[in-house]
Amino acid sequence: MINDPKVKKVLYGGDYNPEQWSIEERNRDMELLPQAGIDTVTLNVFSWAKLQPSEKKYDFSDLDRIVDMVSQKGMNICMATSTAAHPAWMARKYPDILRTDIDGRKHNFGSRHNSCPNSPTYKKYAPLLAKKLAERYGNRSNILAWHISNEYGGLCYCDNCKKAWRQWLKNKYKTIENLNEKWNTAFWSHTYYDWEDIQIPSHISERWNYDRTNMQIQTIDYYRFNTEGIVNMYRMEADAIHSVLPDAKVTTNLMSTYPELDYNKFAPYMDFISWDNYPSPNDSYTRVAFNHEVMRGLKRDKPFCLMEQTPSVTNWQPYNSLKRPGVMRLMSYQAVAHGADTVLFFQMRRSRGCCEKFHGAVIDHYPSAETRVFKETAALGKELKLLSDKFIGSLEKTEAAILFDWNCMWGVMFSSGPSVDFKYTDEVYKYYDAFCKQNIPVDVISPDQSLDKYKVVIAPALYMISKENAEKIQRFVQNGGTFLTTVMSGMTDENDLVTDKGYPGELRKVCGIWAEETDALLPGKPNSVVIKDGSLKGEYPAVILADIIHPDTAETIAVYGSDFYQGTPVITKNSFGQGKAWYVGTCADRDSGLLEKLILSITDEAGIKPVLPSVKDIEVTQRVSSDGKKFIFILNQGTEDKKINIPFEAEELLTSASVKAGNDLMIKAKDVLILCRN
Amino acid sequence: MINDPKVKKVLYGGDYNPEQWSIEERNRDMELLPQAGIDTVTLNVFSWAKLQPSEKKYDFSDLDRIVDMVSQKGMNICMATSTAAHPAWMARKYPDILRTDIDGRKHNFGSRHNSCPNSPTYKKYAPLLAKKLAERYGNRSNILAWHISNEYGGLCYCDNCKKAWRQWLKNKYKTIENLNEKWNTAFWSHTYYDWEDIQIPSHISERWNYDRTNMQIQTIDYYRFNTEGIVNMYRMEADAIHSVLPDAKVTTNLMSTYPELDYNKFAPYMDFISWDNYPSPNDSYTRVAFNHEVMRGLKRDKPFCLMEQTPSVTNWQPYNSLKRPGVMRLMSYQAVAHGADTVLFFQMRRSRGCCEKFHGAVIDHYPSAETRVFKETAALGKELKLLSDKFIGSLEKTEAAILFDWNCMWGVMFSSGPSVDFKYTDEVYKYYDAFCKQNIPVDVISPDQSLDKYKVVIAPALYMISKENAEKIQRFVQNGGTFLTTVMSGMTDENDLVTDKGYPGELRKVCGIWAEETDALLPGKPNSVVIKDGSLKGEYPAVILADIIHPDTAETIAVYGSDFYQGTPVITKNSFGQGKAWYVGTCADRDSGLLEKLILSITDEAGIKPVLPSVKDIEVTQRVSSDGKKFIFILNQGTEDKKINIPFEAEELLTSASVKAGNDLMIKAKDVLILCRN
Amino acid sequence: MINDPKVKKVLYGGDYNPEQWSIEERNRDMELLPQAGIDTVTLNVFSWAKLQPSEKKYDFSDLDRIVDMVSQKGMNICMATSTAAHPAWMARKYPDILRTDIDGRKHNFGSRHNSCPNSPTYKKYAPLLAKKLAERYGNRSNILAWHISNEYGGLCYCDNCKKAWRQWLKNKYKTIENLNEKWNTAFWSHTYYDWEDIQIPSHISERWNYDRTNMQIQTIDYYRFNTEGIVNMYRMEADAIHSVLPDAKVTTNLMSTYPELDYNKFAPYMDFISWDNYPSPNDSYTRVAFNHEVMRGLKRDKPFCLMEQTPSVTNWQPYNSLKRPGVMRLMSYQAVAHGADTVLFFQMRRSRGCCEKFHGAVIDHYPSAETRVFKETAALGKELKLLSDKFIGSLEKTEAAILFDWNCMWGVMFSSGPSVDFKYTDEVYKYYDAFCKQNIPVDVISPDQSLDKYKVVIAPALYMISKENAEKIQRFVQNGGTFLTTVMSGMTDENDLVTDKGYPGELRKVCGIWAEETDALLPGKPNSVVIKDGSLKGEYPAVILADIIHPDTAETIAVYGSDFYQGTPVITKNSFGQGKAWYVGTCADRDSGLLEKLILSITDEAGIKPVLPSVKDIEVTQRVSSDGKKFIFILNQGTEDKKINIPFEAEELLTSASVKAGNDLMIKAKDVLILCRN
Repeated sequence: MINDPKVKKVLYGGDYNPEQWSIEERNRDMELLPQAGIDTVTLNVFSWAKLQPSEKKYDFSDLDRIVDMVSQKGMNICMATSTAAHPAWMARKYPDILRTDIDGRKHNFGSRHNSCPNSPTYKKYAPLLAKKLAERYGNRSNILAWHISNEYGGLCYCDNCKKAWRQWLKNKYKTIENLNEKWNTAFWSHTYYDWEDIQIPSHISERWNYDRTNMQIQTIDYYRFNTEGIVNMYRMEADAIHSVLPDAKVTTNLMSTYPELDYNKFAPYMDFISWDNYPSPNDSYTRVAFNHEVMRGLKRDKPFCLMEQTPSVTNWQPYNSLKRPGVMRLMSYQAVAHGADTVLFFQMRRSRGCCEKFHGAVIDHYPSAETRVFKETAALGKELKLLSDKFIGSLEKTEAAILFDWNCMWGVMFSSGPSVDFKYTDEVYKYYDAFCKQNIPVDVISPDQSLDKYKVVIAPALYMISKENAEKIQRFVQNGGTFLTTVMSGMTDENDLVTDKGYPGELRKVCGIWAEETDALLPGKPNSVVIKDGSLKGEYPAVILADIIHPDTAETIAVYGSDFYQGTPVITKNSFGQGKAWYVGTCADRDSGLLEKLILSITDEAGIKPVLPSVKDIEVTQRVSSDGKKFIFILNQGTEDKKINIPFEAEELLTSASVKAGNDLMIKAKDVLILCRN
Repeated sequence: MINDPKVKKVLYGGDYNPEQWSIEERNRDMELLPQAGIDTVTLNVFSWAKLQPSEKKYDFSDLDRIVDMVSQKGMNICMATSTAAHPAWMARKYPDILRTDIDGRKHNFGSRHNSCPNSPTYKKYAPLLAKKLAERYGNRSNILAWHISNEYGGLCYCDNCKKAWRQWLKNKYKTIENLNEKWNTAFWSHTYYDWEDIQIPSHISERWNYDRTNMQIQTIDYYRFNTEGIVNMYRMEADAIHSVLPDAKVTTNLMSTYPELDYNKFAPYMDFISWDNYPSPNDSYTRVAFNHEVMRGLKRDKPFCLMEQTPSVTNWQPYNSLKRPGVMRLMSYQAVAHGADTVLFFQMRRSRGCCEKFHGAVIDHYPSAETRVFKETAALGKELKLLSDKFIGSLEKTEAAILFDWNCMWGVMFSSGPSVDFKYTDEVYKYYDAFCKQNIPVDVISPDQSLDKYKVVIAPALYMISKENAEKIQRFVQNGGTFLTTVMSGMTDENDLVTDKGYPGELRKVCGIWAEETDALLPGKPNSVVIKDGSLKGEYPAVILADIIHPDTAETIAVYGSDFYQGTPVITKNSFGQGKAWYVGTCADRDSGLLEKLILSITDEAGIKPVLPSVKDIEVTQRVSSDGKKFIFILNQGTEDKKINIPFEAEELLTSASVKAGNDLMIKAKDVLILCRN
Repeated sequence: MINDPKVKKVLYGGDYNPEQWSIEERNRDMELLPQAGIDTVTLNVFSWAKLQPSEKKYDFSDLDRIVDMVSQKGMNICMATSTAAHPAWMARKYPDILRTDIDGRKHNFGSRHNSCPNSPTYKKYAPLLAKKLAERYGNRSNILAWHISNEYGGLCYCDNCKKAWRQWLKNKYKTIENLNEKWNTAFWSHTYYDWEDIQIPSHISERWNYDRTNMQIQTIDYYRFNTEGIVNMYRMEADAIHSVLPDAKVTTNLMSTYPELDYNKFAPYMDFISWDNYPSPNDSYTRVAFNHEVMRGLKRDKPFCLMEQTPSVTNWQPYNSLKRPGVMRLMSYQAVAHGADTVLFFQMRRSRGCCEKFHGAVIDHYPSAETRVFKETAALGKELKLLSDKFIGSLEKTEAAILFDWNCMWGVMFSSGPSVDFKYTDEVYKYYDAFCKQNIPVDVISPDQSLDKYKVVIAPALYMISKENAEKIQRFVQNGGTFLTTVMSGMTDENDLVTDKGYPGELRKVCGIWAEETDALLPGKPNSVVIKDGSLKGEYPAVILADIIHPDTAETIAVYGSDFYQGTPVITKNSFGQGKAWYVGTCADRDSGLLEKLILSITDEAGIKPVLPSVKDIEVTQRVSSDGKKFIFILNQGTEDKKINIPFEAEELLTSASVKAGNDLMIKAKDVLILCRN
């Protein structure tokens, strides 16, 4: 689907679940969907029960019919493997497939994402089904990709997992003595004598709430183990498909900053990244953009696939408001603006029963082409057809990166202290928000990735850091890069053992400071960041945490405005080798403008330019094709029409209008412009 | 107790639990209770442990003594069957009697309402006890009624229930294929192959919170199954009593809009309706009135029994404030005003230990006749004696009905989307509140009841509707009736499958509109209902949900005041056959006056008149005896004295004063007038 | 450690956990700690896993090394027994040692405080370890005390506990009939026929939330049983130590008003009281003082040991703010001012891993003597050395007592009604706060203690009271004492059975009033206390509860300001024998000043004088040595410098300055003065 030479346009469509519909209804849908410009459907996401009605019997007859029907309409297929929910007979016959929850309760058949990653039954039958599907449908040329399972998630706490967990620990730590040391088990007399002593960290051992535990590293390791287990579920199916179809493209749909799985571990095994974009009504546009960039960063050399979004409403939020007129289109282009080469929906037709019956779809319960949602979908379908393959395959060109890491997220999430208000993902997002509002392209990547291509690297709350990555950062600055990090960085090693070098630990030298203590600020009682002069001049709120900082070699850029550490440094800047390292000792308020000014100043100094100057509520991104053509996406995320000055000559792709350098362009609220320049 | 020719007055008394008291204390109580005018006691509610101290042994000696003692004082008895809490030995010997909770935990002995409805042990011993009681006490002429169990409630999730549940499903759906279709199990690969595949919907299968589930219809069916199971518990005892005493009157005490049991399934087997009225300090008087009317509607041809209310305080609310002076009397008359022929309390004497020890009683811990509560009780007792049988047996005469349905409640409660703020019972109550404040008599009945007698039928949020009931409504309007329904009506069939006819589905034709989409309004961000002229003229808040409506044949009465659907219809009115159908596409704010004006206008147009014109805080109802005498109850629910104009000649029963047509009567705060006219 | 003739100063130090550190790190610590003036370390708190690596093997080699190392530095040792967390092998081999939680879930190995008090394995191996430690280290003269286990807490609900619980009930109630009567089991048919019928009150029997239950007395008794079980764990170890070292001093660290254990049951077996002081950032200084006094009151004839406080931050609060400069010193002196003869910290060195890694320590992760915390610690260490033994062993001299009782706490906590806002400990604290702000020394003691030495006794919310204690109070007043009690006093006997004598039951006669009813006031809707003249003149808020009072013999001091009981008594005063009894029928607002004025007036009338007149934010206490020397501690708890007039001649010990009678002394914010007068 992505970088596929057969594909000459933004793919448009999404999940279709014909199992829920009669033949007549399917036929009616087949009349309607092409009217909306739909060219691609994801099939077979939840059909295991139908495909394998008993242990020995497989029945593909209905899927054959569906594939034929869709193919006859000329549509592409994203073929799912149906393994996101196992059949009822399997749960009855082989209860090992059922998960045990964090409270130690073995579940009965029900729900979805319900299969234990260490179930022998699942490991046997899930890849087998994938293989049979590959064998049966591999010759269908309109299958563009294979969609393995669906929105993987959750953890299992069963006895099979316990066995696998102990083995995983043995592989990792080799000796029980080494584990005891790395896990600091001398604490609270937790020394293990035998691998059999080790329990799963759950509500009946070390944890007492979703994010509260006595032994952080155990739970962090359990999350790592679980990620590996689930990646393994994915890989077994991918391998099964590849054993039949070596060139098949495989993917699975991710969920951005989903906290239970380290998506960096999936990326190497995915031919391209797919994800499902379901913002809440209160999410700002920069938050949605951040989510796109987290996903794009998993494979920064490729466009990604927007696998799901709702054309109208979700069903599962507390308040499921309608997407306002134009918003579905705007959000579709926002995905494309950040690197998506598909615009896919969940789903083609609205379910009549069960929990998703009030989730929106292209075709409503009342299957009419006259609904607002259908008409907006059809209009966008028409527009995408006209755009054809103009920017397909192009990529954002970035000179800056923000580091985002699930290990840091887990370290902070499970930490006892210093403040419940300190949230890892939110802190990273605040820095992304500043880039986004300044129209400065930035990658959001794992700290394990290479930093070679960047001029600026931002690492908010890089709580947990390996020696290798710390050295990489040090080299990056040594060689002229600009680095910024913050409070709660460099705190621990990969085993969540706190540095004894003075915070920020392995980053102390490059930052040229020592953060002696970290104060937790009470809600509603901020300190302030005071900057006396320069482009950052002003007083800004300092919230959540406040480091008390002693510069070793750094210069002080900003000081605290109050409390007993009034006048001491809160932002510092250190020259190190050819480069510079900034340290921000507190959390900023996203609305104060501090981070926007800071990022603008830092990037400017590093020679990075915005795509266009910042205008409130106007989001601007740029994709660059391999032959150097630039596509500038301008999205009006606000509720007012705006005027934008374009300093270069370009063509506006949606209207085919020519733009002269210096022209002012009007952009209506919720509207989109796509400029193309050479 | 109800419609009993022996009863010549409002019965006055309530629960008495002498098991908790010594002989001396009982004797003292027997001196005190008659001083308070008590003439009826409910005995034996929680005495199973005493009556059957072991499997083979029954011991009625203490109950004999109690019955004798009470009878000697000339009191009537409501005889309970003691089965609301099983004995400890039974739980030890036959653990099948113990319930398993929604978390899958088998409970030990403890609490009450603790017996599994599918326990063979309970099914054997509960009716047996009822039978023995009937045999032993059947000849006591002062036993007016049999009170089976007590406040039935809760659900069980044990293996015996699982077996019964599968059998119930088999009986209902006949084939597994039919169940799969009706339950839409193609969703999430939930197809069942065998009845054994079906689990109980609990926290270890499909549900993850009291009201959150993936498969709504399963839980709705489980609630239906559980209601049947508990009705069956009730019926087994009723049958046992009737096998001995064919003419015995049986009842059980209900709890108004209690969400876990569909009380319509009890009504056919109850000789009269009884219920327990425990409002919270924040409940308005119209909410209490609503609860009375929900109960009365279960058997609209009979007065009901107020089985319990507290004379002073409850113990189980967060803040158990005292009933202010006069309030107990006012609330007693409010029950009578809505059709009660009894005023009974929980309880006669305050417990000294366990969780109800701070629940109020006629006789306090300190057993004095000098307490405020005792004195108020005695004063009311005296008054009720003087009123004798004046209005006993009379009924409200109504020309309007509001539909209230547990299936709709469950459908909305378990629904995922569109808004957590949309509460079924509250929406129905808002319309009742408008009737009540306008002094217009209205029945609150099941949609399964006949509509023949009504001019106006109101069906707020009639979410789930059978084809038969939809046709009945259509006929009702066809024949000249006025019908009103609202947002979230006609959404699903009995299997919670959404209509594909366009909302409101089966009601679309009669309403003459198509509601295309339903928007969820964020808290604090209302839209508005704008009415340009006429008696409804004004702008009113629209909250929670907002339908976007296309009139098919209806005329627009009101439009939205803002947002992208500003100016589109929110209230419509359709002429259909001889009648009219209104549709209200949003939720009203109860304080805005919109519904009061709307109901007044609709009833007025239908030729329905208020009992008296509306005066703030003055509640007015009317009961009519079989010989046509009218009893007008006027209750001052406010804190200020008021003047009421009486446009007819009447007698005031409490003071025996004559009232001339056109007279102004003063009514003090919290006071009551009862007018009688021919 | 306490009253030990060897000890010539305030002991200074705290927990040190060398198990977590390498030899090199320990050596570095040994250089640093003496620099901070540390003279005492608590060792071996969590080392069981190390000391007993398998059932047959004990290995004291590392502890030998640690003890040697510490001893060589001349430090004292508080030797812990390591039994607060059992070893992993023991849990694997003997699962009886693992607890079952209130939800009925058997736990796996993990966490701490994890041993069942009725585990045969624990009962065998915990005392055995204590004995072996006593044998091995008993000859070390620098071991000042034995610290048994650590912060005992929690309850177990396993089958071994069930057996022990039934036996405990049998011992207490002798016959099942007696238990049935005392537990009022006639309620809800709870009669027991056999001890085997009795279940543990848990979430799968009588309880449905931490503090919600149907049968209060069962849970209260279970808490009593559990306290005994845990006291027994403690005593077994104490006995084991004493079997080897008859003169060893034993203690364990308590947690002030910790609600799960009745600390009065520990006191007789503790040679001195120890406790851990961890206030939240929002606790007022009087709350901290209250906690000290609750602890001191357990053994009012002895100084106590401050066993733990943090030198800087905690890790487990939602917001772990730094102790501001000077605050650690101020809080250390506050402990001393209330009777502590030690200033000990948790801990000497900050852990690198697990949940306490962000808990503060004298030596930080970065082991530098240059941290603010280290420097403040060292400064205080120096000061304490200079103070030497000046006030060691001295005691507060009190003429007033406040009664504080875990049975009352439990009775109120588990009560259903009258108000969830009524909190026992908070009500007691409000009265303490008034004493503290008036600088009037007061003991906080169990109602079981003798009242002989007091002029004034305050008993807020003395909910549950034995006949004996009621008679003791009556005698106290008869003989000239002044007594005060409040709403919710005298409600129940020891079995939580409500009095039938009229509230306040057994205290009715002495108070000379009858409280007929108790109204629950809604949040934000206070009544008021109106006092027309005298020193208490004014109108003050009355909150949470309001008694409606009839004086029998008492005079009315204050009346309600509103509602239907406006003008009726709310505060009364009764002459009884030679003494007086006050009754306060409502809850005061702590900020209104009512209780301060009331306590000042009552104590003044009783001839009790403040140590110094009250000055806002200035805390004043007095310790008196056996030879009559008075030590007046003056602590500035505010943020402003203050001037204090000293009406007597004295020496200021920290500065050795002479103070003349009538002198004004300046005291800086957070500073401390210690005056010594003869």
